[in-house]
Amino acid sequence: MAKPRNAFYAQSGGVTAVINVSAAGVIETARKHRNKIGKVYAGRNGIIGALTEDLIDTSKESAANIAALKHTPAGAFGSCRYKLKGFDKNQAEYERLIEVFKAHDIGYFFYNGGGDSADTCLKVSQLSEKMGYPLQAIHVPKTMDNDLPITDTCPGFGSVAKYTAVSIREASFDLASMAKTSTQVFILEVMGRHAGWTAAAGGLAAEKDGDGPQVILFPEIVFDEARFLAKVDATVKKCGWCTIVASEGLHAPSGEFLSEAGGRDAFGHSQLGGLAPLLAKLLKDKLGLKYHWAVADYLMRAARHIASKTDLQQSYAVGKHAVELALKGKSGVMATIDRLSDKPYKWRAGEAPLSSVANVEKKMPRDFITADGFHITDKCRRYLAPLIQGEDAPPYRNGLPQYVTLKNAPVPKKCGPFEYKK
Amino acid sequence: MAKPRNAFYAQSGGVTAVINVSAAGVIETARKHRNKIGKVYAGRNGIIGALTEDLIDTSKESAANIAALKHTPAGAFGSCRYKLKGFDKNQAEYERLIEVFKAHDIGYFFYNGGGDSADTCLKVSQLSEKMGYPLQAIHVPKTMDNDLPITDTCPGFGSVAKYTAVSIREASFDLASMAKTSTQVFILEVMGRHAGWTAAAGGLAAEKDGDGPQVILFPEIVFDEARFLAKVDATVKKCGWCTIVASEGLHAPSGEFLSEAGGRDAFGHSQLGGLAPLLAKLLKDKLGLKYHWAVADYLMRAARHIASKTDLQQSYAVGKHAVELALKGKSGVMATIDRLSDKPYKWRAGEAPLSSVANVEKKMPRDFITADGFHITDKCRRYLAPLIQGEDAPPYRNGLPQYVTLKNAPVPKKCGPFEYKK
Repeated sequence: MAKPRNAFYAQSGGVTAVINVSAAGVIETARKHRNKIGKVYAGRNGIIGALTEDLIDTSKESAANIAALKHTPAGAFGSCRYKLKGFDKNQAEYERLIEVFKAHDIGYFFYNGGGDSADTCLKVSQLSEKMGYPLQAIHVPKTMDNDLPITDTCPGFGSVAKYTAVSIREASFDLASMAKTSTQVFILEVMGRHAGWTAAAGGLAAEKDGDGPQVILFPEIVFDEARFLAKVDATVKKCGWCTIVASEGLHAPSGEFLSEAGGRDAFGHSQLGGLAPLLAKLLKDKLGLKYHWAVADYLMRAARHIASKTDLQQSYAVGKHAVELALKGKSGVMATIDRLSDKPYKWRAGEAPLSSVANVEKKMPRDFITADGFHITDKCRRYLAPLIQGEDAPPYRNGLPQYVTLKNAPVPKKCGPFEYKK
Repeated sequence: MAKPRNAFYAQSGGVTAVINVSAAGVIETARKHRNKIGKVYAGRNGIIGALTEDLIDTSKESAANIAALKHTPAGAFGSCRYKLKGFDKNQAEYERLIEVFKAHDIGYFFYNGGGDSADTCLKVSQLSEKMGYPLQAIHVPKTMDNDLPITDTCPGFGSVAKYTAVSIREASFDLASMAKTSTQVFILEVMGRHAGWTAAAGGLAAEKDGDGPQVILFPEIVFDEARFLAKVDATVKKCGWCTIVASEGLHAPSGEFLSEAGGRDAFGHSQLGGLAPLLAKLLKDKLGLKYHWAVADYLMRAARHIASKTDLQQSYAVGKHAVELALKGKSGVMATIDRLSDKPYKWRAGEAPLSSVANVEKKMPRDFITADGFHITDKCRRYLAPLIQGEDAPPYRNGLPQYVTLKNAPVPKKCGPFEYKK
């Protein structure tokens, strides 16, 4: 029987509340197959760790610490924003990867990230043939943006969706209390530069007529100031107040982001402060409404304390399934979540060829957005609702969630230094 | 035995995640003393409800619905921002209050709010003597700002403190993952116009060296740009990243709010967008750091999903104790939380004369802030730590917290119309 080869695992791109759960899925599953997979080496700061031979020996971590990753947000090994260029443009980096992988007998490459990472993973899988080095590259999906194709949902999204729906429900209750003599409009700006999934999730908080949010602004629907003002005005007249979930990626008719197009001062400089304050000022100037606004930013994607249990289960499943796919001899594929039914909600882990995944962005279908462009349809609700189901609070100590910090012991280096292209 | 007289209860000022818990404390305790207290009428939108005779008959609400207030954020009866002027300036409003109270045989006045409300409650208690109408006025403290004197803490604050500490811990984990190739600074702007309690609470997340937040900006410490830049620069050099909790009430050396003083454009117009983006831009321009920022605003004070159990218990206790004080014949007092010991943390409900409470603002003592002005001291930590202890998740359905909306049935009017001064 062949000596088990080692695995490389890395986290890439913006982290989430549950990416470490996928890490636990990979590591715990690999540990169950010691006859085939030796050690799991994690890249410190993603693929940079491979290029600089800055590897972490996860076998030095206790089972308890690896299990604790299931309740720890963000990237326990460090992530990076770094996209490998094509072979022709940067062959040195690919040769370096092979050098490092060879030196540490790495036969499995698990890359945990979004669209850009899928592209990197695809390129690494192609290395195997091109450079005659046997390597199985499997992508583990992760993105709060929910914009990867083929997979029904992206691990990380369900938790962001839950955070958004819970937060706007709570803010709506607050605003309703204050509207008589004070604030009448509240705007929550959420992340999501190109696709409106995160903003859409806020719509789940509105379960019956009169619930907030009454207005959602999607990147997929070009901003129409007059129609927006009319909608908010009518809502405040009817309900006494109006809560709005606005995607940071909202577009002006010019095609620019509204936060840039609309936020210039007299010299054409971009204003500070993003979209929410811009919309707030518009509502004050044009409708005379008193406003409050919030910008969630990192808080939403790091909010392990309010993560979706469904998302946690799926995040683990894609990590586990990636290892299983590797053990079956697969390469150049992504583990996926396949939906079997909406109600009752049933799903299983599946797979998709990376060539169909890389560089494809899944936006909100038009029939997920109401005809007036300001809310989600029942069809969207059927899609989103299962993804936020279930709670799984982290352990608390001293009133605060206890998140693990790993030892992250380095693997002794065997290669020379290498400068990656910054 | 005398016929039991009715009680008036109202919510005032900015609402919190737990003000309804105090309402439940008042109503459930009153219901246990039907021989002395008749019905509890709530003011719709605070004192406005008394002035306009817009009263809610809480006896129409089921015991289950009143109990559900304990897990429902915001003001179930509506709040208001409205401060009664002095007798001499607006006698008509005081006469109107007496007219409405007489018409509905109200003998108890429970007012649930912050400093301004304490002032209103004091004035109402003085009505009793001045206008010869027997009325017991008791203040039920509530403010996320934690700035009421005498009481050890203000119901509502512990939950905001917990939200802040949890959020900045989660964002710190996120930032630490990204700092190698991307964002190095994260700023969380928190509410707190005059006192730094809320920002201070973020400091609890830093339990050991290297934990975030490394920097806290208090309204009590005048902003010094050079020292701030040096502190962040040193932190990023040491840790690789830096998280900052900034109080919206941070002051410029001129005495203005920094968000106003520093955020003017070339024409002297205030910039959109508050303090966080202003600080972020400063760090980018002067230190070349890549940043993210969030503004919590209503999200923090409405976040029942992450409320402090200690705060919930204390919020209930002040509501209950207010009724008990009334039953003892007291008036012109506020129910308080009295600390008996730090460790183990022990407290009990107490009382304070409203004349010592109204219009006094409790700021952070200087010895709660480190000598360099950028963090909290151990003394502050001993004070704050008990206040965020314990969790008490609301019930969830469909993945979302289930908050109650009361029937809020109106009490039939007996008086004529009245126009209050807007």
